[in-house]
Amino acid sequence: MKLIIAIIQDEDAGEVISNLNKANFQVTRLATKGGFLRAGNTTLLTGVEDDKVEEAMGIIEENSKSRTQYATLPSSCGAMHGFILAPIEVNIGGATVFVVDVEQFKKF
Amino acid sequence: MKLIIAIIQDEDAGEVISNLNKANFQVTRLATKGGFLRAGNTTLLTGVEDDKVEEAMGIIEENSKSRTQYATLPSSCGAMHGFILAPIEVNIGGATVFVVDVEQFKKF
Amino acid sequence: MKLIIAIIQDEDAGEVISNLNKANFQVTRLATKGGFLRAGNTTLLTGVEDDKVEEAMGIIEENSKSRTQYATLPSSCGAMHGFILAPIEVNIGGATVFVVDVEQFKKF
Ligand code: NI
Ligand code: NI
Ligand code: NI
Repeated sequence: MKLIIAIIQDEDAGEVISNLNKANFQVTRLATKGGFLRAGNTTLLTGVEDDKVEEAMGIIEENSKSRTQYATLPSSCGAMHGFILAPIEVNIGGATVFVVDVEQFKKF
Repeated sequence: MKLIIAIIQDEDAGEVISNLNKANFQVTRLATKGGFLRAGNTTLLTGVEDDKVEEAMGIIEENSKSRTQYATLPSSCGAMHGFILAPIEVNIGGATVFVVDVEQFKKF
Repeated sequence: MKLIIAIIQDEDAGEVISNLNKANFQVTRLATKGGFLRAGNTTLLTGVEDDKVEEAMGIIEENSKSRTQYATLPSSCGAMHGFILAPIEVNIGGATVFVVDVEQFKKF
C-alpha cells in the first residue's frame, strides 16, 4: 500500500478527483490556506495498492500537468479600442506528487 | 515513531480527538475542502511511538467505526399524516487510516 | 527525497515559509480546522533532497521554536490604575516536525 500526496492547482482538482474516482481510487481533498502561497493549491491524499501506483499517477499527470493555454481578452474590449487583441499565452496546471510507503492500512 | 493519518467523519472528530488526547496522543486536525467529496471528512495527524500504534488505532476505531443508527422523523410529522413513522436505518461513521514510518521526529 | 511535515504556530508561518522559500524550498500550507485544538496551528509540507533535510529543519527550528516573550498591558491601563504593570512572561511558538521517506517524487 502506498499513500499518494499530490499538490495540484485548484482549477484541476475537479477533473483529477472525478477521474481518480472513476478508476475506483478514493480521494481526500485537503484545504490549503489562502493568502501566503501561490493562490489555489489543493492537496489530495489517496491510498493505492502497490500495483496501482502508476495508474493513479497517470491519471493525476493527465489531468493536472503544466500546460500552455491561449487566453483572449473579451472581444468587446478589442472592439472598443478598434483592433483585434492577439491571444496571450498563459501557463496553467502543474503538480508536485509524493509517493510514501504505508506500513499499515485499515478501514473501520 | 510512526505517523498516523486518519480520515474520519466530521461528526466523529470530537470524540476521536478527545479520547486520543486523554491517552496523551497529540492530534492535529486538517481542514478538508468542502463541496467536492462526501461532505464532512476530517483528516487527523498524530505521531506515536512504535509501541503505541495499536493503542491509538484502537481509540480511533472505537470512536469512528462504521455503524448503523436508527433515525425517526419528528413525531409531529407522523401525527400530521395520521400514522407512526417507522425508524429508518442510516449508516454513519467509518474511517480510513494510514500508518507511515517516521525517519526523524523533532520538537522545537 | 524526504517529505517534511511541520506543525507550527500560525504566527510563525510567515517567517518559516518566507525563509524556506529564500533557501529554495517549496512549501505547501495546509489549513487547520479551527475550534477543536490549540487555536492557530498550521501544517506545512515540503519535499527536500536527502542532503537538504538538516538545512530545512534548521530554518524551521530557527523561525518557530518555543520561546518566552515579555508582554505588557497597555500603559494607559496601568496609568488608569495608578501603578506600573510588570511585564508578563508568555510562551509562544513551538513546532512538531516529522520527516518521512519519499519513494517516488514527480513534477508534472
Ligand atoms: Ni480595453
Ligand atoms: Ni411529513
Ligand atoms: Ni486595567
